Parts: sequence; C-alpha cells; structure tokens
Amino acid sequence: MKNLAAHAAQNLAALREKRPLIHNITNYVVMNYTANALLAMGASPVMAHSPDEVEDMVVLANALVINIGTLSGTWVGAMIAAGKKASELGKPIILDPVGSGATAYRTQSSKKIIQETTLSVIRGNASEILSLMDKDAKTKGVDSGCSVTDAADAAKQIARQFNTTVAITGQTDFVTDGERVFSISNGHSMMANITGTGCTATAIIGAFLAVDSDPARAAATALAFFGLAGEVAAQKASAPGSYMIALLDALYTITPNQLEIGSKIGN
Amino acid sequence: MKNLAAHAAQNLAALREKRPLIHNITNYVVMNYTANALLAMGASPVMAHSPDEVEDMVVLANALVINIGTLSGTWVGAMIAAGKKASELGKPIILDPVGSGATAYRTQSSKKIIQETTLSVIRGNASEILSLMDKDAKTKGVDSGCSVTDAADAAKQIARQFNTTVAITGQTDFVTDGERVFSISNGHSMMANITGTGCTATAIIGAFLAVDSDPARAAATALAFFGLAGEVAAQKASAPGSYMIALLDALYTITPNQLEIGSKIGN
Amino acid sequence: MKNLAAHAAQNLAALREKRPLIHNITNYVVMNYTANALLAMGASPVMAHSPDEVEDMVVLANALVINIGTLSGTWVGAMIAAGKKASELGKPIILDPVGSGATAYRTQSSKKIIQETTLSVIRGNASEILSLMDKDAKTKGVDSGCSVTDAADAAKQIARQFNTTVAITGQTDFVTDGERVFSISNGHSMMANITGTGCTATAIIGAFLAVDSDPARAAATALAFFGLAGEVAAQKASAPGSYMIALLDALYTITPNQLEIGSKIGN
Repeated sequence: MKNLAAHAAQNLAALREKRPLIHNITNYVVMNYTANALLAMGASPVMAHSPDEVEDMVVLANALVINIGTLSGTWVGAMIAAGKKASELGKPIILDPVGSGATAYRTQSSKKIIQETTLSVIRGNASEILSLMDKDAKTKGVDSGCSVTDAADAAKQIARQFNTTVAITGQTDFVTDGERVFSISNGHSMMANITGTGCTATAIIGAFLAVDSDPARAAATALAFFGLAGEVAAQKASAPGSYMIALLDALYTITPNQLEIGSKIGN
Repeated sequence: MKNLAAHAAQNLAALREKRPLIHNITNYVVMNYTANALLAMGASPVMAHSPDEVEDMVVLANALVINIGTLSGTWVGAMIAAGKKASELGKPIILDPVGSGATAYRTQSSKKIIQETTLSVIRGNASEILSLMDKDAKTKGVDSGCSVTDAADAAKQIARQFNTTVAITGQTDFVTDGERVFSISNGHSMMANITGTGCTATAIIGAFLAVDSDPARAAATALAFFGLAGEVAAQKASAPGSYMIALLDALYTITPNQLEIGSKIGN
Repeated sequence: MKNLAAHAAQNLAALREKRPLIHNITNYVVMNYTANALLAMGASPVMAHSPDEVEDMVVLANALVINIGTLSGTWVGAMIAAGKKASELGKPIILDPVGSGATAYRTQSSKKIIQETTLSVIRGNASEILSLMDKDAKTKGVDSGCSVTDAADAAKQIARQFNTTVAITGQTDFVTDGERVFSISNGHSMMANITGTGCTATAIIGAFLAVDSDPARAAATALAFFGLAGEVAAQKASAPGSYMIALLDALYTITPNQLEIGSKIGN
C-alpha cells in the first residue's frame, strides 16, 4: 500500500491528466476565486444553479460541490435537486455548510442537504461541524469559536451516522470517515486573511474526489495539496492581496513530485 | 480632545483588537473584494441576504452595510428587513445608494431604505447624494456628473432631515452630520480605475462605525485610512490590476501610527 | 480604406476618449473581472439585472452585453427585456451563449434571446456556436470539443440567418458577418487558465461596438486588442493568478500605437 504522500502525488497527476468537470453550486463571494483555483490546479469548473438545469449539469460533471455561503430558498432547492441527482448517479458530492450554527436557517439547510443527499464529504470549521450534531447548544457565531480537537468526536459521530467523511479545517486539519483518522499539518496562517479559503479547500477536495474513490483519502490529500500551496505562496507574499494571487499561482506550479515531498499527512 | 488623526489611529487599533463582524448586503460585483478588504484591514465580514436569515445575522453583527449596486425586489426587501432589525437594536447602519439618480428604481429604493431604517451614514458620490433630495432635476447618469462642492449643501440638508451623517467621496471627500463638516484629502487618482472603490469605502466606514460611536468621525477617519491605503498602493503599482492587489495589501500593512502621520482630515 | 490594424488603434483611442457606458447582464463568476477589464481599457461598466430597471439602464447605455453564464428564469427574462429595448433604440447588443449545448436550458435560452432581440454580435467558442444551429446533434459538453474551423461554416450560416456577426474564439479567432471573414491570431495559451477569458472578450467587443458602427470590424479589432493584452501579460507572468492581474494591467497600458503595430488580423 502506498503512503498518503504518494497518493497525494498520484491524485494531483490524475487530476491534471483527466481534467474533471466540477459542478459548483456555491456562494457569490467566492465564485470567481473558486473557478480560478480549480482551473489553476488543472480541473474544469462550471457554475450552474438554476432549477431548470442543475440536474442536466450533474450528468456531465465528475463531482458536485455544494456550498451554502450565500444561501436562499431557490438556491437550497437547486442544491438538493442537484444533490439527489448526483446521489442517484453515484457521483461524489461535497458539502460546505458555511456559517452553519450562526443562523438557524443555515443549520437547518445544512441538515436538510445532509439528509436528502448521499454526501462523500462534509467540510467545515470546528464550529460548523459541531452545529450539525443534534444537540449543539454551545455553537454560536460565524467564526469558529472552538478548536478542531473539540469537534473531532462530533466529526466521527456524524461520519458514522451519515456514512460519510467529515473534514474539519483549522491550524491542523482533521479528516475522518468514522473509523480512520488523518491529520494534515500543511498550511500557513496567512490563509485566514483572505476570503474563501475554506470554500476553496472544499472545491479542491471536490476535484480530488473525482479522481480518488476513497473519500477520506481524497480529502486528506487535497488538504495537503492546498496547505502546501499556502506554504509556497507565503514564500512569495506577506500581505493578503498579493498572497491570494500567489496562492493561485502555487496551485498551478506545484508538481506531483513536490507534493509528495511536501505533504504532511499523519494518521 | 484628540485631533482627528489621533482618532483615526485609535479606530484602526480598536478595529484590529475587536475584529467586529460586519454584515454586508451588497452587490455581486464587489462581494469578493469587499470581503477581502474587510479581512485585510482586520474586520470580520459576513455576506447574507436571504429574508430567511438577515435578521438573525444582524443580531450577531456589529454593523450593517447596505449597498444597492445590483439591487432587485427580494434583495431590497431583505435590506429593509435587516435595516429595521439593526435600527431596533441600535446597531450602526451605512447605506451606499449606488447609481441612485441613474434609474428611477435605484432612486426610489434608496429613498425607501432611508425612510424605513435609522441610518448612521449614507455614502455616495456627488450625483448619488444629490439624487436623494426631493427635487433632483439635475441629476442623471451613473457616473458622478457633479462635483463634491455642488453636493455639499444637499448633504447638509439630508443629514439634518434624516438625522444622519452624509459622506460624499470624490477627489476630496466631504463628511457632514448637518452641523460639523470634515474634508479628507487622502486618496489617489488610480482608485477610480478599479471597480468597487466606492463600495469598499462604504464597507470600511461600516467597520469604523463598529468601533467609534460618533458616525461623522468614524466616516472621516475611515476615509482617511482608505485614502492613505490608496496612496501607499500607488507607490507599488501603476496599472489597475496590480493596483487593486496593492490596495488590499496596504489595508493590511498600514499601522495606526502610519495612519496618524498620514491622515489629511480638515475641518 | 484603412487597414484593420489602423482601425483597431482608432477604436481604442475613440473608446478612451468617449468612455462609453457598457451595460452588462452577465454571470456572477466574472462580474468583478469584467467590470475591472472594462474600466482598465477605458470604458465605463454598469451591472444591472432587475426587471424593474434594465430598460431604463439600456436608455443610458452605449452598448448592451448579455452573458448567460449563470442564467436563471428571472435573469433570462431581464436579458430579453433589455435586449428588446436596446433593439428598439438601435443600440448594439452582444450575446455570449456560455455553455450553450451543454444543457438544453442553455441552448433554448440562447436561441430565444437570438430570436427576440436584434444582436450585433454573438461570441462563443466553437462548440457553443455549433449548438445554435437547428441541428446540432454532435455538440455536447461545456468545453469546446470542436475546432474553430469546424464551426466556421455554421458561423456564416447563423450570421446570414439572423443578420448578425458571429465571433468564434479559440487558438485563432474567427469573425464573420456572413460575407466577410476575419481571422485574428493574437492571444496566448495562458488565457485558457483563468476563468472568464471568453466573457471578457465578449465585454471588450461590446465596448468596441460602442465606438465602431461596423460590428464585424468592431469584433475583429476588439479581439486583436484583447489577444495582444494576453501576449503582453505573458511577458510579465507565467502562472494564472499573476497572469490575470497582468492581463488587466495590459488592457490599461497598451496604447493605440502599440495596438496598431501588434494587431494580427487577416482576411
């Protein structure tokens, strides 16, 4: 069995070879950056949210990314319709429950999507993941008010309950399918100073899901790749504007070999 | 009493200490740039527009930014709902009446928001502010066709009528609460070559409102800060693409001490 | 009669002199980049999509850009309303049928817009243009699966049928009004690695339509300008993040004289 760093390299090479089509139903804030990140790394992004076409687009796509960052009624309906179609076709789906726990509407919408679709991965910060538990008395606020460690037990429980993989990102990232646990220590503190880093992580996992049939491994290797890009960007830029540009550049320039050497994935 | 440059420095320091949550209901064009600008300067942005959650989000927020740049019926409804809730809770609100005067729909929507909410600040260019007067026969067009000086009297009148502060941005910025008048001469001509500079100014005032209880002072010091960032960026970049990145960098790197030295706020 | 390179220079100079207002009803992904590209080159962009104002905005505009990239029912309705008004007023309109052929909804919406408005130009990749033919059995997928040459005959037919100009972009761009044919060989392969390059090409043609009454010539010279910007940017940047910034810079810095020298437009 290959180690995870070798799998990361293999996934990145496969992605650039296959150029999978990633269907994103995501938020207005990050649409441009997400599309550019997917293109830079070697995937092919498409954004489509109309109830009149989401199911047709899912048929063409290799993976579906659902992100509730600027949700509203029609969009949540389209997310569920697309998610059901992808579930039916056995295509990988990743959910980013942005701000779940901050408003009741976000928590309820996230839970509804989880119940009505077959998700490969759920990625959030610790606070968002905790909010998905049945009893989440302590989670409030948009920013993550709790550590990755706090949320790890919740993540395992959610992964088992919904037969999915949960990825919690933070200073150290944490991925579990309810049995296995991976921790990824790639990344850089500057990533928190630009908008949509979490959303980009989700989209990149979505792309890796299109080339790796093991969702937990796809998530862990994708987070190592994105974290390494964050490290490479920090060598070029020390303020957020130039950093967000350097980060896109790094997604393009990092080779599978560099990723294998730079990955920091532990069990 | 401190001078305004000292207050600018104090506001910037307070903002980076407190990291206030700024709730933006803004336009599609600038959402990403606005979020990045707020993050870079030290605030915490959230974008949420659904009628199903805007009031809950306002409860969590320290200030509300309403920007009608790509308005439509549902969004204006959500702006008013959020604005009423913020008014009720005594939270600061800033309105950016983008393009008011260009179409009747924009003028009417702006006036409706002004009437139904308690605004701390209205920020626009001269043409937009003039369009908010009851008789605005002369104002037409999306771009500002009139000077800041032309609009200054209108600004005072509007400020008194609605018990608010009006900020007009242009080559020299002008802020009045109907009594006091501040003029801010920071800034750089390159700022007009990138989209959303006005919208960013509005969001930055929104963030300063979260840490300064005097709206006119918050607006004046915020505009000095943003203008100084424009000056610093011009030392790094001379074309719009690299300039918009350098501007984000400057919002991150300018220290309270640099702001105190660089502020050009007159009475 | 001037050659086309001289016309390109003349159009760019006229545009920077006149600063035409370009009304865009476009997709969420590219709104910011499109607005910045138009501003950088010297035009004045406005984004407005509400059925409550699109017709009023068209009255103020010098050209209308319709782009279906993230279409939905209300937006398509607004596109048609704006397009009808512009047709009635004799203002130039350009359509970008993004993803036509990928989903039935996109193909049908594109055809509906073509039928109900008087378009000056339709710009797409080869696959999108082929999908607009009555029988397009072979066109599937979001990415262009067929070459510019394959689509050239279709383009001529569509141009004649709808009395319009068709521009197909690819490695070599192709413009026809059904009689004349122009081919433009400016451009750089890196342009394919950033999102919205096609959408930006469409918007730039829209701006040139505001200063050149010959739509085919406007399209050909605009594509030469954008392609040259792509070449200039490639001298500054070799990865997509920094490239998209360098491309905006080039739209600002290229002079009419440089464009006259650098244009590669053939008959």
